[in-house]
Amino acid sequence: MEYRDEKLPEEKVFKDPVHRYIHVRDKVIWDVIGTREFQRLRRIKQLGTTYLVFHGAEHSRFHHSLGVYEIVRRIIDDGFSGRREWNDDERLVTLCAALLHDLGHGPFSHAFEKVFDLDHELFTQQILLGDTEVNAVLKRVGTEFPQKVADVIGKTYPDKLVVSLISSQIDADRMDYLQRDAYFTGVSYGHFDMERILRVMRPTEEQAVIKYSGMHAVEDYIMSRYQMYWQVYFHPVSRSAEVILTKILHRAKQLYEASYIFKFEPFHFKSFFDRTFELEDYISLDESILLTYFQMWMKEVDPILSDLCYRFINRKLFQHTEFNPATEYRKIGELEQLFKEAGIDPAYYLVADSSSDLPYDFYRPGEESERLPIYLQMATGELSELSRSSDIVDAISGKRRTDHKLYFPEDILEQGKEGNPLYKQILDMLKG
Amino acid sequence: MEYRDEKLPEEKVFKDPVHRYIHVRDKVIWDVIGTREFQRLRRIKQLGTTYLVFHGAEHSRFHHSLGVYEIVRRIIDDGFSGRREWNDDERLVTLCAALLHDLGHGPFSHAFEKVFDLDHELFTQQILLGDTEVNAVLKRVGTEFPQKVADVIGKTYPDKLVVSLISSQIDADRMDYLQRDAYFTGVSYGHFDMERILRVMRPTEEQAVIKYSGMHAVEDYIMSRYQMYWQVYFHPVSRSAEVILTKILHRAKQLYEASYIFKFEPFHFKSFFDRTFELEDYISLDESILLTYFQMWMKEVDPILSDLCYRFINRKLFQHTEFNPATEYRKIGELEQLFKEAGIDPAYYLVADSSSDLPYDFYRPGEESERLPIYLQMATGELSELSRSSDIVDAISGKRRTDHKLYFPEDILEQGKEGNPLYKQILDMLKG
Amino acid sequence: MEYRDEKLPEEKVFKDPVHRYIHVRDKVIWDVIGTREFQRLRRIKQLGTTYLVFHGAEHSRFHHSLGVYEIVRRIIDDGFSGRREWNDDERLVTLCAALLHDLGHGPFSHAFEKVFDLDHELFTQQILLGDTEVNAVLKRVGTEFPQKVADVIGKTYPDKLVVSLISSQIDADRMDYLQRDAYFTGVSYGHFDMERILRVMRPTEEQAVIKYSGMHAVEDYIMSRYQMYWQVYFHPVSRSAEVILTKILHRAKQLYEASYIFKFEPFHFKSFFDRTFELEDYISLDESILLTYFQMWMKEVDPILSDLCYRFINRKLFQHTEFNPATEYRKIGELEQLFKEAGIDPAYYLVADSSSDLPYDFYRPGEESERLPIYLQMATGELSELSRSSDIVDAISGKRRTDHKLYFPEDILEQGKEGNPLYKQILDMLKG
Amino acid sequence: MEYRDEKLPEEKVFKDPVHRYIHVRDKVIWDVIGTREFQRLRRIKQLGTTYLVFHGAEHSRFHHSLGVYEIVRRIIDDGFSGRREWNDDERLVTLCAALLHDLGHGPFSHAFEKVFDLDHELFTQQILLGDTEVNAVLKRVGTEFPQKVADVIGKTYPDKLVVSLISSQIDADRMDYLQRDAYFTGVSYGHFDMERILRVMRPTEEQAVIKYSGMHAVEDYIMSRYQMYWQVYFHPVSRSAEVILTKILHRAKQLYEASYIFKFEPFHFKSFFDRTFELEDYISLDESILLTYFQMWMKEVDPILSDLCYRFINRKLFQHTEFNPATEYRKIGELEQLFKEAGIDPAYYLVADSSSDLPYDFYRPGEESERLPIYLQMATGELSELSRSSDIVDAISGKRRTDHKLYFPEDILEQGKEGNPLYKQILDMLKG
Repeated sequence: MEYRDEKLPEEKVFKDPVHRYIHVRDKVIWDVIGTREFQRLRRIKQLGTTYLVFHGAEHSRFHHSLGVYEIVRRIIDDGFSGRREWNDDERLVTLCAALLHDLGHGPFSHAFEKVFDLDHELFTQQILLGDTEVNAVLKRVGTEFPQKVADVIGKTYPDKLVVSLISSQIDADRMDYLQRDAYFTGVSYGHFDMERILRVMRPTEEQAVIKYSGMHAVEDYIMSRYQMYWQVYFHPVSRSAEVILTKILHRAKQLYEASYIFKFEPFHFKSFFDRTFELEDYISLDESILLTYFQMWMKEVDPILSDLCYRFINRKLFQHTEFNPATEYRKIGELEQLFKEAGIDPAYYLVADSSSDLPYDFYRPGEESERLPIYLQMATGELSELSRSSDIVDAISGKRRTDHKLYFPEDILEQGKEGNPLYKQILDMLKG
Repeated sequence: MEYRDEKLPEEKVFKDPVHRYIHVRDKVIWDVIGTREFQRLRRIKQLGTTYLVFHGAEHSRFHHSLGVYEIVRRIIDDGFSGRREWNDDERLVTLCAALLHDLGHGPFSHAFEKVFDLDHELFTQQILLGDTEVNAVLKRVGTEFPQKVADVIGKTYPDKLVVSLISSQIDADRMDYLQRDAYFTGVSYGHFDMERILRVMRPTEEQAVIKYSGMHAVEDYIMSRYQMYWQVYFHPVSRSAEVILTKILHRAKQLYEASYIFKFEPFHFKSFFDRTFELEDYISLDESILLTYFQMWMKEVDPILSDLCYRFINRKLFQHTEFNPATEYRKIGELEQLFKEAGIDPAYYLVADSSSDLPYDFYRPGEESERLPIYLQMATGELSELSRSSDIVDAISGKRRTDHKLYFPEDILEQGKEGNPLYKQILDMLKG
Repeated sequence: MEYRDEKLPEEKVFKDPVHRYIHVRDKVIWDVIGTREFQRLRRIKQLGTTYLVFHGAEHSRFHHSLGVYEIVRRIIDDGFSGRREWNDDERLVTLCAALLHDLGHGPFSHAFEKVFDLDHELFTQQILLGDTEVNAVLKRVGTEFPQKVADVIGKTYPDKLVVSLISSQIDADRMDYLQRDAYFTGVSYGHFDMERILRVMRPTEEQAVIKYSGMHAVEDYIMSRYQMYWQVYFHPVSRSAEVILTKILHRAKQLYEASYIFKFEPFHFKSFFDRTFELEDYISLDESILLTYFQMWMKEVDPILSDLCYRFINRKLFQHTEFNPATEYRKIGELEQLFKEAGIDPAYYLVADSSSDLPYDFYRPGEESERLPIYLQMATGELSELSRSSDIVDAISGKRRTDHKLYFPEDILEQGKEGNPLYKQILDMLKG
Repeated sequence: MEYRDEKLPEEKVFKDPVHRYIHVRDKVIWDVIGTREFQRLRRIKQLGTTYLVFHGAEHSRFHHSLGVYEIVRRIIDDGFSGRREWNDDERLVTLCAALLHDLGHGPFSHAFEKVFDLDHELFTQQILLGDTEVNAVLKRVGTEFPQKVADVIGKTYPDKLVVSLISSQIDADRMDYLQRDAYFTGVSYGHFDMERILRVMRPTEEQAVIKYSGMHAVEDYIMSRYQMYWQVYFHPVSRSAEVILTKILHRAKQLYEASYIFKFEPFHFKSFFDRTFELEDYISLDESILLTYFQMWMKEVDPILSDLCYRFINRKLFQHTEFNPATEYRKIGELEQLFKEAGIDPAYYLVADSSSDLPYDFYRPGEESERLPIYLQMATGELSELSRSSDIVDAISGKRRTDHKLYFPEDILEQGKEGNPLYKQILDMLKG
C-alpha cells in the first residue's frame, strides 16, 4: 500500500478537553505528530504572556494544532462526506495543512517577531520545505507534497475551498482557538455551537459557506470572537508583560551591539542580533530557553536588563494609563523629557502600545481582504454576504476598534516620589 | 491597623476554571502571592511529565496553590462561620499554610528528589523560614508567624483541626488537585460534589469530620481519587517519561563525577551533584531551566546523555511490559546480562518502575498513619470511621495496589534486530 | 423572636442544575415555598409549548422562581453587603418579591391570556392579596407586608433599587431564565458570566448599575438574550403549537357560546367563557388539566375541536411560511376566500402570527419605557447609559425586529390535493 | 426503494442536552417518533415522583427513549462499523428496539403497576403488536418486523448481541438514563466517560464486551450507577410521594368497590379497578390525567382520599423513620394497633417501604440472572467476568443492599399531640 493510504492498525486517540477525543487513523498524520518540529510546539504557549493574567492559560500550541486538525478531519470525514468528492490526496493535504499551520511560531511569537523583524508564516514554509523531520515525512507521500501543504497554509493553493477551511473568517483555526482559549482561561465567553456550524457548513468551489438557517450560530461565533479579543487577548496586563518582554530583547540586542560583556552570553540570540540565523537556530528556540536567559540575566550588571528580567520573571509589571495618540502626542514628548531628567530611560520605561481588531470584515471591492468574508447560502442557493442579513454583524463589521495604552513603572515612581519631585510630577501627569 | 488585619481597598479576584473565581481580601495573602518564591510555582508543572500523555496537563503548581487557598478560605469564611471561633491570627495562619503548602516543590519534583535524595517538604520549611521574600512578608505579621505557618504544613501545629484542613484524607489539597487535574487533562473522572462536602464538613477539636448524610458524596470523592491515580497519575506512558528524566539526571551526575568535559556545563546542578547546594540554588531552579539543559545536552558527545535527552525532548519514550518482581527477578538478571552483551547499558535502558497507592487508609492502632482517616458524624454526635459505614470504601481501604512495569527502548531493539540476534532475543524475552 | 427574623434550625438547600444549590435560611421563605399557590407552579411549564421543539424544555416555573430568589439573595447577602444598609424588612420584601414574581402565571400563559383577555400580573397581585395560603404566610410578617411585596412586583414600590433587581433590563428574572432555559433546552446560547455581573453590580438610589469594567460581561448577556429570543423563544415550530392551542380555546369558547353539547364538559373553563371566574377558578387551573381536556376533546363530535386537539396532543402541527403583512394583506384575503371555498375554516386553519422583540431599549425622553435602561458607572462615579459606550449594544438598541409567519395545515392540503384542485391552488399560493 | 431503506431527504436532528444532537436519517425511525404512542411518552416523567425532591427532574421518557436510540445508533454506525456485518434489517430492528424499549410505561409507572398488578414490559409488547400507529409503521417494513422488535425488547431475539445492547448490565438504556437523570437533577454523580466505553466496546456472538484497557471506565460507570441509585432513585422523600400515590390509587379502588359515589367519577380507572381494561384504556392514560383526578379528588367527601390527594398535589408528604423488619415487626404491630385506637387508618397512614438494589451482578451458575454480567476482553482475546479483575466491582457485586423506611403523617400527629395522648405515644415510638 502507498504510504499516503496507510492506516494505523488501530485508531489512536488523544484525550482533549475541548473536543473530548482527537482521532488519528492515518499513518502520515501520526508520523507528522512525532517529529521534533511538531513536538517543539509543546514548549510554546498558545497565548504568550496571557498566563500572567489568566493563570489557566498555560496551554501550548501543540494541542491547538491537534484541535484544528480534528475540526478539519470532522468536516471532511463527516460533514462534507457524500457532498463532494475529495480525492485522497487532497484530503491528506488539507489535514496536514490544518495540523501544521502554526508550525513556524517562535517563543512568545508576537514580541519575538516584532523585535527581530521576523514572520512566523515564512518559518512555517521553511520548516515544511527545509531539511527537517517533518519535511522527510511529507516527502514520503510524494515529492510535491510538502509544497502543496505549504501552499494551502500560504493561501496560494489552487483549491480555494481547501484554503478556506484553514484561513477564512470562520475557519477551523479560529473555531478551535476560541473554544480552547476560553476553556483554559476559564472565561465564559468563547462558547458557540460548533456542532451546529459544522452541520450547516456547505462546500462551494470558492470556499465553505453557511446555510442560511445557521446564521444565528455564526452571529454567536462572531460575538464570541469579539469578546475574546477584548476580554482576553488584548487584556492590558498581559500587554504589559509583552511590553517588558519586547524591551528585554531590545535591550539585550542593544547591549550586544554595544559590545557589552554578558555574564551569561546570549548564545541562542547572537545569530538573530546579527541577522545571520539559519533555520536550525530558529527551531532550537522555545520558551523554556527564553525563560532561562531571563533568569540568568537578572544577575547582569546592566541595570536595565536585569530590572526588566526581574520584572518579567517575578511579575512586577508596568502600570498603564489610557492615552489618545491623536491629541496627546505632545504630552508624550513632555513625559519623555521628564523621564530623561529623572534619570529613567523612556525608551524602556515609557511605552505606548496599541491593540486593534476588526471583528468581522466584509469584502471591499478594490481592496485585498486578508480573510474571506462569510457567505450565507440562501434557500434559493444564492450566496449572500453575512453582514447583509445580520444586524449585529453589520453593526460591527468593518469597524476597527483600537485601544491605546501608555505603560510605565509606577512602583519606581511611587517609591521615589518623596525624594524626587520630578517623580511626583511624572506621576501626576500620568495618573491625573 | 495591624498588617495582619489589613484588607485590600477592593477585593481582588483571579479567574479560575475550577472555582470560577479566587477571592483575595487580605493584604498579607496578596503580598505573599507577589513574592518571587510563589511566582516561581508558575514554572513548575502540577503533574510533571503527564502532559506528554494528556496534552492538556500543562498547568502549573501556581494555580493549584491558589485553589487550595480558596477552598480553605471558603471553609473558614462560609462553612465554619458561626460554628467555631477562629481568632484572626489562626485564620491567617491557616490561609497562608494552604497557599504555601507546595512552595518547596522543585522542577519535575518526583524525579529530581529521587536522584538527589531531597525532600520538597523540607524545602517548603526552609523557604518559609529562610532569607526569602515570602519570609519577609510573613514576618511582618509577627515574629513567630512564619514558624506557625511552617508548623501547620509540617503537621506539628497544636491545633489539629487546622492541620486536618490541609493534610488529611479529605483535605483542601486533594479536593483541589483532583478537580483541577481532571479539568486540565479533560478526563471525566475527578468530579465529585465539593459544594456538598463543604456543606457537611463539621469542625471538631481533632479534625474536620463529615455529617453522616454526606457519606455518599465522600464515597464519590474517594472513588474519584482512586480513578485519577490509576487513570492519570500512574499512567504508564508518563512514568516512561519520568524514567527517562531520572536517568538523564543520573547520567549527568555520573559524568560529572567522572570529570567528563561538558560542552554545556551543568552550572545549575553542580552544587546538587556535590551536595553543597544552598537554599538559593534550589529556588533558582525550575522546569524551563531543566528543559534548556536537556536541549543543550542533546549535542553532548556522551551517547547515553544525548540519547536520553533527545528522547525526553522529542517524546521518543521507552516501551513497557508488565513484570512481577516476586517471580521474575531471574528474568531481569538474564535480561541485564543480555543487554550488556548487546552493548546497551541496562543501568539506563532497562528500568523497573513501580507505582503503588493506598486509596483510603483507616487508622491502625500502633501504626502511625500518614494521613488521618475520615470520620462520619452520626445523628447522635458520635464519630464513626468511614469504612465502617461504607461498603465501597471498606472494599478498597487499607489495600495497597501496586503496578510493576519494565521500561526499555523498543525502537533501538526493533531497528537492530535484523543485524543482531541478541536484539531479537531480548525483544522476544520482553514481549513474549 | 418575630416571625420576620426567624431562621430555620439548619439551612435548607435545593439542588439546582443552574445555581448548584439554592439556599434558604429564612422561615418565611420556607413557608412561602410550601404554599399550594407556589407548589402549583410545578404544574406550569416555564416555556409553554417549547418542549415540542426542544424536548428538554419540560422544566416548570417552580424552579425558575427559586432561581430568581437565589440570585437576589446573593446580591443582597453577598454582593451589596457592606455597601448599603438593608433593613431586615426591606431584605425580606425583596426576597419574597423575587420568589413570587411569576405566581400569577396560568397554564400555557401566553395563549390562555390572549384568548381570555387576562393578565398574569394582575393575578399575581390578587393571589398575594386575596384569601390564599401565600397571603396568610406573608401577613404573619406584618399587615402591610403582602401589599409591599405586591408593590415591588407591580413596580410601584418607593425604593426603586429594590424594584430594579426584579424588573429592569438586567434583572434577576432575566439572568435566571436565560441560563435556565439554555440549560434545559441544551442550546449553547444563554451563557454569560453572571458571577462577574454580580461582582460589578453597584446599588444606587434609583437602580442597580454596572461598574464600567463589567461592560463586556453585560454585552455578552444582552447578546445571549438576543440569541435566546430568536433561536428558542420565537422558534416557529413552538409558535405553531401555540397557534393551535389558542385555536382550541377559541373553538371551545365558540362552541360553548353556541350551546354545543360537549361529551366532556368544559367544567373548568365555563367561568372563563362567561367571564364570571373568581380567583379560585384561576388557581385551580394548570397544564395537566388542560392536557386532560385536550385528550378528552379529541373524541368530540365537532370536527374542528377534535382535529385541533389531536394535533396538539400528537404533535401534528401546522406548517408555516413567511409573509409580509404590509405588502401581502391582499394575498391573505384571497387565501381566506379559497379556504372557505375549499371547506376549510380559515378562522382556525389559516393563522397569521408575529413575534417581535426589542433586544435592548435605551431611555427615550417623553416615552414611558417598560424596562429601565442599563447604566454603567464610570471611574468618575458618573452614570452613562450602556448603548453610548458599547458599539454592539448601540447597534441593536431600540430596533424592534419582527417576524411574520402564516400557519396552515399542510398535511390536509397535501393529502387532498389530488382530489381537489382548490387544495392544489392554495398550496401553490402558500409555498410558491 | 423499500421503505426499510428510505432515508430522509436531509438528516433531522433533535437538540439534546446530553448527547448534544440526536441524528435521524432513516424514514422508519422518523415515522415511529411521530406516532401517538411514542408522543405519549412526553406526558410521562422519566423519574416519576423524583421531581418533588430534585426539582429539575421533570424530564419525560420521550427524550430518554431518543437518547437510547442515539447511543445504539452510534454503536452500530460508528463503533462496530467495519467490525461486524450488520445486515440492514438487523440494524433497523436494533434501532427500533432501542427507541421503543420503554413504550409500555404508564403514568407514575412503578406505583401504578404495583396497585393494578400490571407489567409495563407486557404493554410494550402489546403496543408493538396491537392495533396501534406504531405497529402500522413497523409493519410497513415487513410483516414479521413488529414481532422482531418485540423479541429484542423481550430478550428472546436469537441474536444475543443485539439484545445485549439494550438489556445488559452495561446497555444503552442505563448509559442514557444515568447521564440524563444526572443532568436534569443537577447532581454531580452519574458522569462517566461514555465516549471511552463506546470506543472499547467489542461485539461478540453472545454480547457486547469491553476491551480490558477500558476497565476503569466501566468501574466508574458502575460506581455512577450505584451513587445514582442511593442518592437519587431511592431518595426517601420521593419514595414518600410514591407511597402516597400508591395509597391514593388503593383508596380510589377500595371506594369504587364499596360503591362510593364519587363527585368526580374515576372514568379512566374503572376498567383497571374491574380488570376489564383494553390496550386503548392503557394508552389513553398519562400523568396529566392522573394529576387532574388528584386535584378533583381533593374535593371528595371521603376524608382519606381527599387528604392523600391534597398531600400529593401540594407536597405535604409523609415523614419517615428507619426500621428493621427483621427485629421490629412487633413494633409495627403495636403501632398499627395504636393508629387504629387513635382513629388513623394504618392501612393508609403507616406504610413500610423498602428499596433494594444489586449494584452489579456476576453470573451465578444455576441461577437465572436477569441481566448479563459484563465481560472484559483480555489481550489474549479471552473473556473474563468484570468482578474478577476489578477490586471495586468485586467489593459490591452480588451484594444486595436494602433500605427500610416507615412512612407516617408527622404533621397530623404533631398538631394533635396536645389534645390526644395516643398521638404523643405514637410519635415517641416512631421518633424515639
